Amino acid sequence: MFTKSIKFSSAYIDAVIKNALNEDIGSGDVTTLSLIPESRRSTAVFIVKESCVIAGLPFAKRAFELVDPRVKFSMLHRDGERVKRGSIFARVSGRTGSILAAERVALNLLQRMSGIATMTAEYVKAVRRYKAEITDTRKTVPGLRFFDKYAVRAGGGRNHRFGLFDGILIKDNHIEAAGGVKMAVELMKKNSGRRFKTEVEATNISETKEALSAGADIIMLDNMTPAEMRKAVAVIRSENPKALIEASGGINLKNVQGVAATGVDLISIGALTHSVRAVDVSLEIR
Amino acid sequence: MFTKSIKFSSAYIDAVIKNALNEDIGSGDVTTLSLIPESRRSTAVFIVKESCVIAGLPFAKRAFELVDPRVKFSMLHRDGERVKRGSIFARVSGRTGSILAAERVALNLLQRMSGIATMTAEYVKAVRRYKAEITDTRKTVPGLRFFDKYAVRAGGGRNHRFGLFDGILIKDNHIEAAGGVKMAVELMKKNSGRRFKTEVEATNISETKEALSAGADIIMLDNMTPAEMRKAVAVIRSENPKALIEASGGINLKNVQGVAATGVDLISIGALTHSVRAVDVSLEIR
Amino acid sequence: MFTKSIKFSSAYIDAVIKNALNEDIGSGDVTTLSLIPESRRSTAVFIVKESCVIAGLPFAKRAFELVDPRVKFSMLHRDGERVKRGSIFARVSGRTGSILAAERVALNLLQRMSGIATMTAEYVKAVRRYKAEITDTRKTVPGLRFFDKYAVRAGGGRNHRFGLFDGILIKDNHIEAAGGVKMAVELMKKNSGRRFKTEVEATNISETKEALSAGADIIMLDNMTPAEMRKAVAVIRSENPKALIEASGGINLKNVQGVAATGVDLISIGALTHSVRAVDVSLEIR
Amino acid sequence: MFTKSIKFSSAYIDAVIKNALNEDIGSGDVTTLSLIPESRRSTAVFIVKESCVIAGLPFAKRAFELVDPRVKFSMLHRDGERVKRGSIFARVSGRTGSILAAERVALNLLQRMSGIATMTAEYVKAVRRYKAEITDTRKTVPGLRFFDKYAVRAGGGRNHRFGLFDGILIKDNHIEAAGGVKMAVELMKKNSGRRFKTEVEATNISETKEALSAGADIIMLDNMTPAEMRKAVAVIRSENPKALIEASGGINLKNVQGVAATGVDLISIGALTHSVRAVDVSLEIR
Amino acid sequence: MFTKSIKFSSAYIDAVIKNALNEDIGSGDVTTLSLIPESRRSTAVFIVKESCVIAGLPFAKRAFELVDPRVKFSMLHRDGERVKRGSIFARVSGRTGSILAAERVALNLLQRMSGIATMTAEYVKAVRRYKAEITDTRKTVPGLRFFDKYAVRAGGGRNHRFGLFDGILIKDNHIEAAGGVKMAVELMKKNSGRRFKTEVEATNISETKEALSAGADIIMLDNMTPAEMRKAVAVIRSENPKALIEASGGINLKNVQGVAATGVDLISIGALTHSVRAVDVSLEIR
Amino acid sequence: MFTKSIKFSSAYIDAVIKNALNEDIGSGDVTTLSLIPESRRSTAVFIVKESCVIAGLPFAKRAFELVDPRVKFSMLHRDGERVKRGSIFARVSGRTGSILAAERVALNLLQRMSGIATMTAEYVKAVRRYKAEITDTRKTVPGLRFFDKYAVRAGGGRNHRFGLFDGILIKDNHIEAAGGVKMAVELMKKNSGRRFKTEVEATNISETKEALSAGADIIMLDNMTPAEMRKAVAVIRSENPKALIEASGGINLKNVQGVAATGVDLISIGALTHSVRAVDVSLEIR
Repeated sequence: MFTKSIKFSSAYIDAVIKNALNEDIGSGDVTTLSLIPESRRSTAVFIVKESCVIAGLPFAKRAFELVDPRVKFSMLHRDGERVKRGSIFARVSGRTGSILAAERVALNLLQRMSGIATMTAEYVKAVRRYKAEITDTRKTVPGLRFFDKYAVRAGGGRNHRFGLFDGILIKDNHIEAAGGVKMAVELMKKNSGRRFKTEVEATNISETKEALSAGADIIMLDNMTPAEMRKAVAVIRSENPKALIEASGGINLKNVQGVAATGVDLISIGALTHSVRAVDVSLEIR
Repeated sequence: MFTKSIKFSSAYIDAVIKNALNEDIGSGDVTTLSLIPESRRSTAVFIVKESCVIAGLPFAKRAFELVDPRVKFSMLHRDGERVKRGSIFARVSGRTGSILAAERVALNLLQRMSGIATMTAEYVKAVRRYKAEITDTRKTVPGLRFFDKYAVRAGGGRNHRFGLFDGILIKDNHIEAAGGVKMAVELMKKNSGRRFKTEVEATNISETKEALSAGADIIMLDNMTPAEMRKAVAVIRSENPKALIEASGGINLKNVQGVAATGVDLISIGALTHSVRAVDVSLEIR
Repeated sequence: MFTKSIKFSSAYIDAVIKNALNEDIGSGDVTTLSLIPESRRSTAVFIVKESCVIAGLPFAKRAFELVDPRVKFSMLHRDGERVKRGSIFARVSGRTGSILAAERVALNLLQRMSGIATMTAEYVKAVRRYKAEITDTRKTVPGLRFFDKYAVRAGGGRNHRFGLFDGILIKDNHIEAAGGVKMAVELMKKNSGRRFKTEVEATNISETKEALSAGADIIMLDNMTPAEMRKAVAVIRSENPKALIEASGGINLKNVQGVAATGVDLISIGALTHSVRAVDVSLEIR
Repeated sequence: MFTKSIKFSSAYIDAVIKNALNEDIGSGDVTTLSLIPESRRSTAVFIVKESCVIAGLPFAKRAFELVDPRVKFSMLHRDGERVKRGSIFARVSGRTGSILAAERVALNLLQRMSGIATMTAEYVKAVRRYKAEITDTRKTVPGLRFFDKYAVRAGGGRNHRFGLFDGILIKDNHIEAAGGVKMAVELMKKNSGRRFKTEVEATNISETKEALSAGADIIMLDNMTPAEMRKAVAVIRSENPKALIEASGGINLKNVQGVAATGVDLISIGALTHSVRAVDVSLEIR
Repeated sequence: MFTKSIKFSSAYIDAVIKNALNEDIGSGDVTTLSLIPESRRSTAVFIVKESCVIAGLPFAKRAFELVDPRVKFSMLHRDGERVKRGSIFARVSGRTGSILAAERVALNLLQRMSGIATMTAEYVKAVRRYKAEITDTRKTVPGLRFFDKYAVRAGGGRNHRFGLFDGILIKDNHIEAAGGVKMAVELMKKNSGRRFKTEVEATNISETKEALSAGADIIMLDNMTPAEMRKAVAVIRSENPKALIEASGGINLKNVQGVAATGVDLISIGALTHSVRAVDVSLEIR
Repeated sequence: MFTKSIKFSSAYIDAVIKNALNEDIGSGDVTTLSLIPESRRSTAVFIVKESCVIAGLPFAKRAFELVDPRVKFSMLHRDGERVKRGSIFARVSGRTGSILAAERVALNLLQRMSGIATMTAEYVKAVRRYKAEITDTRKTVPGLRFFDKYAVRAGGGRNHRFGLFDGILIKDNHIEAAGGVKMAVELMKKNSGRRFKTEVEATNISETKEALSAGADIIMLDNMTPAEMRKAVAVIRSENPKALIEASGGINLKNVQGVAATGVDLISIGALTHSVRAVDVSLEIR
């Protein structure tokens, strides 16, 4: 199960959804205002047109509530569940005009979030025989990082740091500015390393060793081949068994199992959130 | 050329980008604050790792400006241009800390928008021998519709209505609520049809004829086979040569040319914005 | 009956009313805080001091709710109804301090909106024997366009486009920039005319003919005399029976019937919203 | 001369104007985007079609700046000046698209504010031989009180309290709740009277005397006839020469001189801001 | 008892508290999300570790409600009451995660506000045998003035003007700019003195006399010794018995009784809000 | 030197300062608007009335800029410097009205922030012969945490976690909910411990040992006597030399040296920000 932290930031979530509703509805739904009588009521069902891991239900629900608090939204499945093609996973009833006003925003959230969850689940499944965990990156859509990362959890993945503020990752630019890996890690441990683990990016074995001996808590193996990774993992495990190892760069569904087999702890995949294929979801009035 | 309407809504654009920066930077970039001296300055270049139609440059520029007005951003290409793999399309110089703070947001915008523009350009190219134009839908990422639709224009596509407020589209739910196509179109013409053209969705020939005789200005052929479409186009052209014809539903790069060959005027593709493959873009400090 | 689209934008409406309450109450109602005991409760009635078409009731209600959700507001009439001088059209009861805090904002909304509805109703009545409909313009009070246009509907008028984004109107400046009416209409039809009807302003018969032959869907007869209008209407009806005709400029209650008699379809009146006479409304504690 | 306090609240003013621009422009000016080339530049002049006291120029200027900082706006007159019919009072030059985007908001502000200033000036002129000053009320348009009150000052009037927070006015409801005028004034002096003068509403001579003997600093003579007012003024002047006297209720241009002749100090007129007749102002591209 | 004006500005209060919650919780409470099961519920009590006058309870309650509307908060004491060391003054129960999320913000509000109320009460007690009242200043924490001033009232103090907008205080800079006290007071009475009492700062007897003869309603004796104050009070009382006298500058708990003994009406103390000692308050889960 | 991260969040800082200005100025500075001519210009100097470590200068500067961009503010000292009683540390010149409008907000920021910096510096000095560093807590004023923590850095202190989102601290409630220290630390390491160090609160030796053996990275010795602390430090150093030790609870200027002498690494002091004594700062027009 993944953690649902919705309670803690409902004002934030409402702001995002209100903004999306406003973007779509603007000065009013011309078609509906002209054609649908105020008093007309409908019931509609959400259907997936393909097997997927569903995600985004509480937010879809919220979209309807924000348009019209009297709309009733019942979930037949929960975020993180795999649902079959053709499944009805939620039902909404109330004023027809309200349902049509929130429809697109709800669908846009569901199709993207379920797309992320489904792809994450494929990666998770691919590495299920290894200890490696699948994790996301900061390559999310501007303004929707909370939603993107929530969907990764729904698909069984883990979240990496949320942003620049809640995790350390020393990359080549930092290393160069600090005057070498050793200096960078020392400076970091002195400045912010008391609260955070220090992660360092390494692109080959020599950098890996340097990071290790500088005292890095986590080593990110960046764009290495599986063979290099295997060697790097061996070096790290022998020198500091507590260090965590992350693989990153150019990993896809075809090669992810090979990466996991190298013994890394974490595999981070930018495509989980930067190249999402929407799940086909529709709302049908019954 | 596509229209750049940035001037008209710079406050809106700034709000989106500030929000994205805030999401990523939060209470501060822990790594950079610890390692990069305040006074250090760098120059970095934006490189594409694959051939693409670039889009989002003015927004990437704005991300740097909003973090630090003294950062200098020069564009070597313009939105809408195709750039080759390995091209440097922009250069940024200023405080290293400022460059690193805005980097991810700028890249996230560029990789998504260039992805949209590039895919749109592929569709446009596929139908270039026909009069059909490629257009987007409302299946955009919540809160980023302006950016998504801008990128479609950069790729040579046309924008469909922005939201529910600036265009009419009568779908099955509206038709049923109004008591038939004829009633729906009449009601629409009476209520809002004075300013807007009336578009009606039809899923077969019989609905196409009904929409036509009701007076629809635009007919959307929804989920028809090319054969059905061809027949529908013939019917429409003979009865109302001024009517506009849009094809929609299940259209992809493989079948789009066949759709265009039926003689439709517009082909709308949800995947342009709901299933974006990010272009691989990176920022390298030199 | 006019369409009440309040549901679709309640966040927007709340923002406007909260802003008005904040403007009036600021750091607190000094008089009431000093004199009215916290626990005191009252019932008060809204009375019109002159016959009018009432408008703004849901918004007046909202003003009280936003100050104090426990205040009870009951409507005895509905927006769009004509009420006689001396009528009690609503009743409010709850904490006296809350009632006094929201009073002025509620009255300011009601007096303006009822003023607009009442004047609109006079114009509508004046042209009731003709097919012409009365419509508003964009000459509204900054920030209150939704409310102004709602009140026009309450008075039996129709709304013209909400803003620059949901309707086309080609004026002299556009024509000149485009290089003539013909060029302007063609350019428009190519760029945005697929979704919108194209309206063109004409100030004399020759311009009217030019607009018609260029393919305008709607002709706005601007500042013509009734005689010219009559001639223009004849020309238009004979050349394009489907074209819509709008009269605009310098129209008032004295001459509006003459304008309607020319056979135009729409008569737009800026004064409906730019020169409102407030209806005298008061709140009396009983 | 009237006080221009614009400097102190420019963020507030910008927020109001941005909101108005957003309301009008929304997702973009369809007509201009389609017809006016990006690079086209124009010069346009503001003309009044009738003699008036001009007001709102700095805000009109700001509307253009907020759309496009490179638009140049030059004032040929200043707020508070009377300008003749046909006068050009300002000139604007820059991108044609920017000018057209801000045009309506600028005009809507100018036409209302000049209307208020002009009407105020008529009242001020009507009482110019008396010491009475013309003042406004809280009967302003929701959200625009600053602008409405600014325009009153531009017309030579004085501002009454801005809202409930910066002035005391004891009305019948307060008196009743407090248990009589004497109790109300005493309670007020004890609670808030240290900073504020205490104004009490009186509708007849007996209430006037009661307010006076309770210690009111200002007596508002509400809805009295000139004869009653004259008597009330005499009573007040003999008992407390320092007390200030305000006349209120049912005062218009026909009877205002008679009211001033009774010797009151202030005459408050709700119609200055609740029933504004817009001045006819236009922008002409040259 | 002090006036609780919470009702009138609940949107403002919510904004302040939401902002504080957001500041503390950001992207989520890492510790609680990792350790506390979603379903776990707790009851916790608020305890004071020292005798104090409690203040801030409604705002602490609101912090919990804003995080989770289902949390139940019961007050066992009320703002303005003195509570003994070790007292339980409120109880909260609901989801453990919600309680922990709002805990710090609630405590930060309570510890500061109770600190202000308690110190105010000490001053009030010190001068209880004199007519002098204790009042606050504008030396409050940026953004929290409402809360600071509320706490002063809870401690038995009076509020001075809220800001620059709701009270007049003529200081040396104003006097110099106006060309002397006499000119300043006259100018003020002419411009804003109709609604407000005019307070003038005086630093010695000669300035006191000048202010008095200029017509000041309130004299602020600034940084005088008790002996000077006594003399100034005598002068003022003999020349204008209605004038109010305020003592200000360098007053602390040791000398406040001496200041009160001089016969002044008001004693303003910046330290009430600029140098607060937090009351030790804690939340204990039971 | 302390890190100045102002660049990264200037929008946030502006929002806080604008809010404070709005709070103080509201509908306008009545005194200044009445007495100070628009055109009058002044130069004023900031003076400290007591020796202190100054902090807040860039924010004071910003307050003036936000009121009037043409005001010139020159710093004669920098944040973090100790300045002597009577020193002029900044000079401001421009429109007198603008200077007076921003004065109080600037002073309120400076007096609080310098108070924090000065008190922090006293603690830092008290422990200067030990390795212990002084750190702040989350006991800050709601909405001003950034400013409070910045001032701690200016005084030579270190910042603890900013909020709940960027650091782990396992307290008794978490331990109990998780079913013991061992379970809590394990759960944490599994869930969030990959990015963050895990800090555990211990109130006695037995809890200290438990936390250590559970694998805590940081042990917070809460409310222990120096004797107990010494023993705890010995235990920790012998079992895990890499573990960090923080002392917390009931520490003040009198006992802080004794605490530092126990060998702890960090000493956290809530009073640095919850019980600030304002430094006496004033602005004098010259």
